[in-house]
Amino acid sequence: MPDRTYAIIGAGALGGFYGARLARAGCAVHFLMRSGADIVRRRGFVVESKDGDFTLTDVQAYDDPSRMPLCDVAVVALKTTQNAVLPGLLPLVLKPDGLALVMQNGLGVEDTAAAVVGASRVMGGLCFLCAHKLGPGHIRHLDYGYIDLGEYSATGVARGVTDRMRAIRADFEKAGIRVELSEDLLLSRWKKLVWNIPYNGLSVVLNARTDELMGHPDARLLVGDIIRGVVDDAGAYGKIIPETHIQRMLDNTTEMKPYATSMKLDFDNHQPMEVEAIFGVPLQRAQQAGKQSPRLATLYRQLRFLDASRHN
Amino acid sequence: MPDRTYAIIGAGALGGFYGARLARAGCAVHFLMRSGADIVRRRGFVVESKDGDFTLTDVQAYDDPSRMPLCDVAVVALKTTQNAVLPGLLPLVLKPDGLALVMQNGLGVEDTAAAVVGASRVMGGLCFLCAHKLGPGHIRHLDYGYIDLGEYSATGVARGVTDRMRAIRADFEKAGIRVELSEDLLLSRWKKLVWNIPYNGLSVVLNARTDELMGHPDARLLVGDIIRGVVDDAGAYGKIIPETHIQRMLDNTTEMKPYATSMKLDFDNHQPMEVEAIFGVPLQRAQQAGKQSPRLATLYRQLRFLDASRHN
Repeated sequence: MPDRTYAIIGAGALGGFYGARLARAGCAVHFLMRSGADIVRRRGFVVESKDGDFTLTDVQAYDDPSRMPLCDVAVVALKTTQNAVLPGLLPLVLKPDGLALVMQNGLGVEDTAAAVVGASRVMGGLCFLCAHKLGPGHIRHLDYGYIDLGEYSATGVARGVTDRMRAIRADFEKAGIRVELSEDLLLSRWKKLVWNIPYNGLSVVLNARTDELMGHPDARLLVGDIIRGVVDDAGAYGKIIPETHIQRMLDNTTEMKPYATSMKLDFDNHQPMEVEAIFGVPLQRAQQAGKQSPRLATLYRQLRFLDASRHN
Repeated sequence: MPDRTYAIIGAGALGGFYGARLARAGCAVHFLMRSGADIVRRRGFVVESKDGDFTLTDVQAYDDPSRMPLCDVAVVALKTTQNAVLPGLLPLVLKPDGLALVMQNGLGVEDTAAAVVGASRVMGGLCFLCAHKLGPGHIRHLDYGYIDLGEYSATGVARGVTDRMRAIRADFEKAGIRVELSEDLLLSRWKKLVWNIPYNGLSVVLNARTDELMGHPDARLLVGDIIRGVVDDAGAYGKIIPETHIQRMLDNTTEMKPYATSMKLDFDNHQPMEVEAIFGVPLQRAQQAGKQSPRLATLYRQLRFLDASRHN
């Protein structure tokens, strides 16, 4: 696949950031945006970034997917709460052999895309990105940015590293984005949940930043207890998360700058939270494996309540 | 003990309400108040009550315990977070054979009093009272008011119904307060925790009234899961809480008027919450009995975090 073309589905902080970086590096990138496509066509993408600010002009931005060319890779950068639009969308923007690259958090997030294009045409990307959208075509990139990339499989079995993973990595690395190739996407997803479940969940329930959570002994103990539960749930699927990963993650979180999680930003902005992908599906999977997961269940129900009350 | 005299330690909503009712019924009642004693001496107690408003004049109110007469019964109506003052206080206000009647929520709340006056001189009262203090000597009584009364024992063994329990009941009933005599104070305390732990805890963590909790399916499920955990913890001490008690409590809570719990009022008013008595000690007891109590532990740590952050 030389000169892969990219369709970016959803130009929020994540899709906007990675898409603009790919385009700046010379890739053919087409952005599908729910709103603001006209503004972006006129003014381009403005990215304020710790790696250096830039403005991308001559952006291919669309509000109508049927006007987009068929692409080689569709980067799914919607919030998981919007995944129901994918069955109507993906066939309009992907070549018959094109790939869906699902760059979302949580578990089961590739399932909708897989049902539409077939499991063998789906990859997952876990984005370690701290960025937010200030307005249409205006992104602020605060920290991180690397991606874990892996092949999807419906059964969760590890599919190893493939040539097409290397090809996509090459494009992102040309754009200055570090990409790790994961031999086991589901293991990578559980590993990321080990962070997302305690920190996203508690940041909303306790109205706290990561540094506040790590700075209080009870919150720190609770984070540890929640993590051990997630590690246990992952283990029930043969996904073994080493103690070193957990410790490195805790250390990184303690050292990183004060940070409001993406879920807290959603909550504070009265946006739907990704409760199902990050909490509901993992809980369901854990319970299917015979695990009670009481702490995860508690967080899940608390967040469902808060998500509903915030929208009233 | 004819003509028992009462010392009310702490004239918040609870001490003020019960003390004023006892005094109105003709009992000799002496109020120890941290603040506002001069106002109460001058203006009396004003009680707005669903049972009928009244004003009590000629109130014996004190700010200095050493000026109080020695009484037959010291009603401990402080918040449990203030129990550390009891060793200095009780000897000043109780006759050598006087009783400490601890009218507080939670577990282990009698222990301080028992250490001072001896376990055999301690009783516990569980108050089902919905009231709050509007200002010095100004109480609003919204609902309920009955008391479960029981004899304390250091080991938690049931001590049955005693004559002195009946005598105290007679005083309260003269004041129009219904009193149930509990043969097993510790069982009664666990039964009350079955309500207090889910509703006090979640009302603070989820910033919700009882009706909002009962009106959302996930919160209702979570309440049920938390309750089952508390019932299980109680069972580890041989305190068996029947399913009928749980169901009646859930039904009552669903039917009662929208209600912010006392812990939520404390939190909203930036007052210390009774986290240890209602969550910490029960958790400790459960873990001593080999129970993990993950939901209780989660709530406990969340509340410790919120309690600390609210005081910053």
